[in-house]
Amino acid sequence: MSTIPSRGGRFAEGPARTAAEYTQSQSFDRTLCFHDIIASKAHARMLGRVGVVAPEEADAIIEGLDRVREEIASGRFVWRPELEDVHMNVEARLTELVGDAGRKLHTGRSRNDQVGLTFRLFVADRIAAWQGLALDLCETLMRQAESHRDTILPGCTHLQPAQPVALAHHLLAYAFMLRRDVDRLGDAARRTRVSPLGAAALGGTTYPLDPLQVAKDVGFDGICDNSMDAVSDRDFVLEACFCAATVMTHLSRLCEELVLWSNPAFGFVTVSDAFSTGSSIMPQKRNPDVAELMRGKTGRALGALTAMFTVMKGLPMTYNRDMQEDKEAFLDADRTVATSLGVMAGMMEGVVFHADRMAAACDAGYIDATELADHLVGKGMPFRQAHHATGALVALAESRGVPLKGLTPEELRSVAPCIEPGELAGVLDCATAVRRRETPGGTGPLSVARQLETLRTWVAETRRRLPKPIA
Amino acid sequence: MSTIPSRGGRFAEGPARTAAEYTQSQSFDRTLCFHDIIASKAHARMLGRVGVVAPEEADAIIEGLDRVREEIASGRFVWRPELEDVHMNVEARLTELVGDAGRKLHTGRSRNDQVGLTFRLFVADRIAAWQGLALDLCETLMRQAESHRDTILPGCTHLQPAQPVALAHHLLAYAFMLRRDVDRLGDAARRTRVSPLGAAALGGTTYPLDPLQVAKDVGFDGICDNSMDAVSDRDFVLEACFCAATVMTHLSRLCEELVLWSNPAFGFVTVSDAFSTGSSIMPQKRNPDVAELMRGKTGRALGALTAMFTVMKGLPMTYNRDMQEDKEAFLDADRTVATSLGVMAGMMEGVVFHADRMAAACDAGYIDATELADHLVGKGMPFRQAHHATGALVALAESRGVPLKGLTPEELRSVAPCIEPGELAGVLDCATAVRRRETPGGTGPLSVARQLETLRTWVAETRRRLPKPIA
Amino acid sequence: MSTIPSRGGRFAEGPARTAAEYTQSQSFDRTLCFHDIIASKAHARMLGRVGVVAPEEADAIIEGLDRVREEIASGRFVWRPELEDVHMNVEARLTELVGDAGRKLHTGRSRNDQVGLTFRLFVADRIAAWQGLALDLCETLMRQAESHRDTILPGCTHLQPAQPVALAHHLLAYAFMLRRDVDRLGDAARRTRVSPLGAAALGGTTYPLDPLQVAKDVGFDGICDNSMDAVSDRDFVLEACFCAATVMTHLSRLCEELVLWSNPAFGFVTVSDAFSTGSSIMPQKRNPDVAELMRGKTGRALGALTAMFTVMKGLPMTYNRDMQEDKEAFLDADRTVATSLGVMAGMMEGVVFHADRMAAACDAGYIDATELADHLVGKGMPFRQAHHATGALVALAESRGVPLKGLTPEELRSVAPCIEPGELAGVLDCATAVRRRETPGGTGPLSVARQLETLRTWVAETRRRLPKPIA
Amino acid sequence: MSTIPSRGGRFAEGPARTAAEYTQSQSFDRTLCFHDIIASKAHARMLGRVGVVAPEEADAIIEGLDRVREEIASGRFVWRPELEDVHMNVEARLTELVGDAGRKLHTGRSRNDQVGLTFRLFVADRIAAWQGLALDLCETLMRQAESHRDTILPGCTHLQPAQPVALAHHLLAYAFMLRRDVDRLGDAARRTRVSPLGAAALGGTTYPLDPLQVAKDVGFDGICDNSMDAVSDRDFVLEACFCAATVMTHLSRLCEELVLWSNPAFGFVTVSDAFSTGSSIMPQKRNPDVAELMRGKTGRALGALTAMFTVMKGLPMTYNRDMQEDKEAFLDADRTVATSLGVMAGMMEGVVFHADRMAAACDAGYIDATELADHLVGKGMPFRQAHHATGALVALAESRGVPLKGLTPEELRSVAPCIEPGELAGVLDCATAVRRRETPGGTGPLSVARQLETLRTWVAETRRRLPKPIA
Repeated sequence: MSTIPSRGGRFAEGPARTAAEYTQSQSFDRTLCFHDIIASKAHARMLGRVGVVAPEEADAIIEGLDRVREEIASGRFVWRPELEDVHMNVEARLTELVGDAGRKLHTGRSRNDQVGLTFRLFVADRIAAWQGLALDLCETLMRQAESHRDTILPGCTHLQPAQPVALAHHLLAYAFMLRRDVDRLGDAARRTRVSPLGAAALGGTTYPLDPLQVAKDVGFDGICDNSMDAVSDRDFVLEACFCAATVMTHLSRLCEELVLWSNPAFGFVTVSDAFSTGSSIMPQKRNPDVAELMRGKTGRALGALTAMFTVMKGLPMTYNRDMQEDKEAFLDADRTVATSLGVMAGMMEGVVFHADRMAAACDAGYIDATELADHLVGKGMPFRQAHHATGALVALAESRGVPLKGLTPEELRSVAPCIEPGELAGVLDCATAVRRRETPGGTGPLSVARQLETLRTWVAETRRRLPKPIA
Repeated sequence: MSTIPSRGGRFAEGPARTAAEYTQSQSFDRTLCFHDIIASKAHARMLGRVGVVAPEEADAIIEGLDRVREEIASGRFVWRPELEDVHMNVEARLTELVGDAGRKLHTGRSRNDQVGLTFRLFVADRIAAWQGLALDLCETLMRQAESHRDTILPGCTHLQPAQPVALAHHLLAYAFMLRRDVDRLGDAARRTRVSPLGAAALGGTTYPLDPLQVAKDVGFDGICDNSMDAVSDRDFVLEACFCAATVMTHLSRLCEELVLWSNPAFGFVTVSDAFSTGSSIMPQKRNPDVAELMRGKTGRALGALTAMFTVMKGLPMTYNRDMQEDKEAFLDADRTVATSLGVMAGMMEGVVFHADRMAAACDAGYIDATELADHLVGKGMPFRQAHHATGALVALAESRGVPLKGLTPEELRSVAPCIEPGELAGVLDCATAVRRRETPGGTGPLSVARQLETLRTWVAETRRRLPKPIA
Repeated sequence: MSTIPSRGGRFAEGPARTAAEYTQSQSFDRTLCFHDIIASKAHARMLGRVGVVAPEEADAIIEGLDRVREEIASGRFVWRPELEDVHMNVEARLTELVGDAGRKLHTGRSRNDQVGLTFRLFVADRIAAWQGLALDLCETLMRQAESHRDTILPGCTHLQPAQPVALAHHLLAYAFMLRRDVDRLGDAARRTRVSPLGAAALGGTTYPLDPLQVAKDVGFDGICDNSMDAVSDRDFVLEACFCAATVMTHLSRLCEELVLWSNPAFGFVTVSDAFSTGSSIMPQKRNPDVAELMRGKTGRALGALTAMFTVMKGLPMTYNRDMQEDKEAFLDADRTVATSLGVMAGMMEGVVFHADRMAAACDAGYIDATELADHLVGKGMPFRQAHHATGALVALAESRGVPLKGLTPEELRSVAPCIEPGELAGVLDCATAVRRRETPGGTGPLSVARQLETLRTWVAETRRRLPKPIA
Repeated sequence: MSTIPSRGGRFAEGPARTAAEYTQSQSFDRTLCFHDIIASKAHARMLGRVGVVAPEEADAIIEGLDRVREEIASGRFVWRPELEDVHMNVEARLTELVGDAGRKLHTGRSRNDQVGLTFRLFVADRIAAWQGLALDLCETLMRQAESHRDTILPGCTHLQPAQPVALAHHLLAYAFMLRRDVDRLGDAARRTRVSPLGAAALGGTTYPLDPLQVAKDVGFDGICDNSMDAVSDRDFVLEACFCAATVMTHLSRLCEELVLWSNPAFGFVTVSDAFSTGSSIMPQKRNPDVAELMRGKTGRALGALTAMFTVMKGLPMTYNRDMQEDKEAFLDADRTVATSLGVMAGMMEGVVFHADRMAAACDAGYIDATELADHLVGKGMPFRQAHHATGALVALAESRGVPLKGLTPEELRSVAPCIEPGELAGVLDCATAVRRRETPGGTGPLSVARQLETLRTWVAETRRRLPKPIA
């Protein structure tokens, strides 16, 4: 009999060495070992309860699996590459440990549904981990926002100064992006936490199994309703990779701003030494490398998503070996998202914001123009006309190289005769402009306080409901 | 004053013709005109209620917008390319119709939040349309499944015959994929149906607006909590494009099977004349072109998703013109998904399944081997040994060119001495094999009936809760 | 007989309306009409020469095709959607015009090889057009570089000021990227300009055709060596889409810099009014919309490439209808690249660079630190030590808020005792630093002059060798 | 002084542990160590020749680098993670070995141009390796084609039997795809084999270096013409990843056919035991896992390409840390392409083709219909009418369940009165049909012989010109 259990009696010849190396997965799916053991224990427990194996056999299997777990955890487990994947490695060692009972573990299941359940358990755990890390980052952003309720910088559209905004407001925009990410991940988790066990190879099994019991045992919500779908579905991987790419896209935007703001032309932030690097030949350099690299890693997450879609496109029913590619794609996305969220929280914690440079920037770019136009509307001028008059005043001020408040009363009246000398004093002030924007979601201080309150409540509730790690 | 309202008094020169053509969007965002009008009517109504415009002005605007709507619907509306986009076209015509009141419509909003709301209304409508079309296709699959409860074909893994399954079961696997799609689309819709109005350019507005009123007026669930996030968020487009790519990936798998099964080697299906095409030089050809083309269109949906991620990666706060690319990407994905779901329903309705060819295929490929192995296990042989013995019998039968039931009692006993003559009669029968797989989700007839019932309930409830079209 | 030639005698029923709409291509492949006619004329000429049709029939076909061409050019041609694609439309009209001879045009070819040749002719023409537009843009960049040989700005790595560079040098970096694009496009063209005609449906034809004659007639270099590869190859589309994505990626980098430099914190450039836009509510705004949108369109080109790879992945031999998706993907990439290159040339022509702001920026960021370190090395200090000492001096200067040249002799000596008072005067000067970098490819004036010369020669030669338009 | 050379005197604090782990690259760029050493040796040799370092220093460095190389090759080298990357590791060890001279190696270069050259050397070597492997696979395909000149199978379009073709012809279609790949890789190599050295950080260097000497020393063709382009260009990675995705797409098509043909409905091939796997529960299974997995790995290559484009999009000049992502993307694509080409050659070498099953399949699907139509044209019937009559005869035969040659003379004449009894005998024969297609590129035996000859010549010449490995 072949040492490779799955080859059985039909094969005269073993696999070619290159083919075995090409198709092996144990070098990366080892990571799933604890989830495999949990799934197997639940399966064994159920087999015992429904009477497919004797209670004492079930106990022996469970005990044996616990010993395998321990061996792995302690580093004593000997991985055998020729056994192809993590599942075969665990089962082979189990059988060494507990004998014939171990051989019965595979009753009523196949690698197709076993891999499905194991991987779903793993992905569910990682999603919860990402959610926790995103909450941490939210809290870091909220802390920085708390400290910068009164710091004002030019809010941009088209990277052109548009209107003054509170730095707190700007930072919370990212917290709200992350809130959507956490929400989206929760939906993905709901569709992941469904057990395919019972599907066996593809059509269900002839043993009187109770798949729902297994699902509940591992903490899942339910079971797949169709066994062919069960073994051929990888939507949960696609969805997790999509969520990963979205998280990374959000982070990439924050990174872009950190990079921009580190340039001395802005000088809005100093990223701490701990998250900066220098140059091998330019002694003055202090590069926001971490932010740049994180921005680049967006590509990696999108690459994993693209890869998974390409894999699944056009595959006939049911399981096809192409789908083995799901592991490395997801594992890479997982490493990318988890480390990036953690590193970003560390980096944002230590970023120093320079309120003086932000204030100075508010004087360039005529970001008080909207205030002036609104003021003219308040004096009865139709909006489009006020917009046009203000534009002309900006052009005039720009040609003279002064801010709007640097225009003389005569210059102001040459364009807008209704402006009295001195009346613009309170109008062309950034702090006032920010204070006046108190509509829901606006940049005004009360609105920002409400946003912080909303986020605090949500973080607390979400943390409470975050599922505990399965393994 | 420039004819282009947004250029105002600051610009000495108009846009270059090539630049105007390059940046214009009205050639494609016209499609959003009715959603723009609904958003504008809700904004006007709110402006009237909170007293920013006089009640009679609000009425005039609303009436004017209704007339614009009518002009567009009847084809009398004259689109002016130089007005850049749908929003400016509608507003310009409104002002022609109702005069100064029209100019007040834009009070307290900017194109940034206006475009955001309009597009969210549009995407929400399209998501609901996709959901409806997916339900239709589910029902078609369910009808075909009803008719083929007793049709048996070789279920495949690795495209190799694995075990016999009911055709009904096979078809319902696709219905369950679509159920996930509909569920996922519902989540996307929830995150889409949030109004950015009130954000104005980026920081909120100084007018005492009531954004929640607008949101409820258009049938949305709430408003964005942060104005900078409001105008720079395109997660809803990413998510809709992701859902589109997932739907298309599912359809591509069904297409693949229709193409395979149309090949005379299988001969499992005849796609109706209405969904087949011929060849300009090969008179015998009857090509499943529709299925092939649909499989290919998966690329298009994935392309739109890739494009949107690439657009958003690394954009600083807040709105940047890059984001205008969201429209065409989504519109293309929309056309792809909506037509594909509809065409697939039409095609599946008329597909003729050839039970005889499927039955014949069950005789090839030794798909009864699992039954034999299970039978040997039932007789007390350990599973791995039974697996090995059966493999050896398959090899023997294959070398003689006969099915398993074609082996002589002597041949059987040469490998598995425990087999009595004649005892395999009932075992090596596909119908029996299918009937024995009644675990939840299995291919057995009771399980299939349960699946149909589950789907029927779900379709009915989902249809009931499907949001009505906004425009 | 069916009005749709390709359905022939085997079909009892016409296509479903939805299926016909879904599979039609004439709404977009009309664009290929002139290339189809050129391919057909070459085929007809060859059929006449080898005697498969009578010389007078060949003449009649060619004359008829010229009349069809004229009808299309003048807008009199009536496109018939029910005829599926451009090829059937042209052939049907040809037959109306010249009768039975028209029906003989299709002898010895099928739509598979006809589409292949037509599309290759079209792609080859577009590649040449892109090359021409890229050369135009190179020349614009070269003209601006000529005007800015002495303008110095801080060259960045990590978006941190690194060392002073000539603006001319910076702009020419983009010209050299475009040179690679043009070179790469030439390679793609070489692989495109190969004729599949003679392959017929897939296996070649029984008529004594001379495919090489057709290839030479249309200006191609040779023919496909294997008929199955001929009708199923779409590498040329993949490669053209890849080149398009690369061009757009290069442009996106220039766009990014234009956007950054337009922000008042930099203020390095003013994009002309003709390529800027304003805001509907912020009168001061002057947004680099064109640059932003172009940066966004990179996504579109990458989307087209992703789509095409997804289409082709896993397709069995030979032609499959999925491949029809190649047209829209390429046409979209074509529109994107061609308009972007043209618009960028227009925009760069009018960009005003502000040398004073660039000079001011050179004073921030300690970009003279490398000079100081090199100077210390010149005085005998080991490089790593000089690097360290300079870093310490930068830290000191930064803490005092002065440039390096603002440090007192005492401060300098406190870190590097070897520095004599006054000796750094010439060292810490950006113009000198630039002038000293005359290694091949460096930013020094002689090197820049050599680069311009290299580019001028290359542009002239490349233009001379650019293939003439086929249609 | 910091142990990390690049941090120098400006940093008060070391990097955060998480940041250091996040940004380190030595865990994967170790792979480039031998190429780094070659680049450094060439740089040192040049420094010695131009007199920037003393001749004996240059000798010491070169000798030291050889010792480092040896230490790595023998496994004695101690990698130090805190030294960030391969370059710093090598340099630090060099300095330990040869003292001060080692510190001079970095004179006139920076990590930016050093990394660029090292990576270009590595990519160039891998491209040549891929080319060699593609040639090997071509030869395997050619050997199989030689053995199957007379084996005939149904050539498909739309996966529907279209016309009979020689198996040799079918296999050679893949060889010609690979020929394009090899050609394309050669173009990519030409653009890769250009040295950025001399660019230093970004603007060139003040040392009187001779970059062309270094380029020639490492076997490259020339140097980058612009130093800013030199350090920020990653086109060569994009292009290599594109070529990788194209190779994998071609292989995915062959895999698809192997998978299809392994299904018993076709039964055209038996993939050897060495490249097949079984099932853990279905004893009869013999799955073409290797072909499936390889098809899936297309996604991976496309993912790497997508990632790289996403990384590069919108990056300002010059080097940005995002670009570090190029290594892992390329290394993954490299592993994918190299192993896939090798494994495919092994698999194709051992594939057994079943001519009998192919011949039987020729009897289904009416692939002789084109012959009949051509025959009717030969008897003077206009082509479109012959096409229609044949279609009607196919419909008639199909309804009777017989092949065309099974129709009675009466039946034939009922549709096409011109057909004399018996006259179709030679016409409806697949071998004849194949033999008649001798146009260039056709499936006829002479054409196939010509194709083999063309390929043989090309393989020999290409092998001769394949660049030798650099390291």
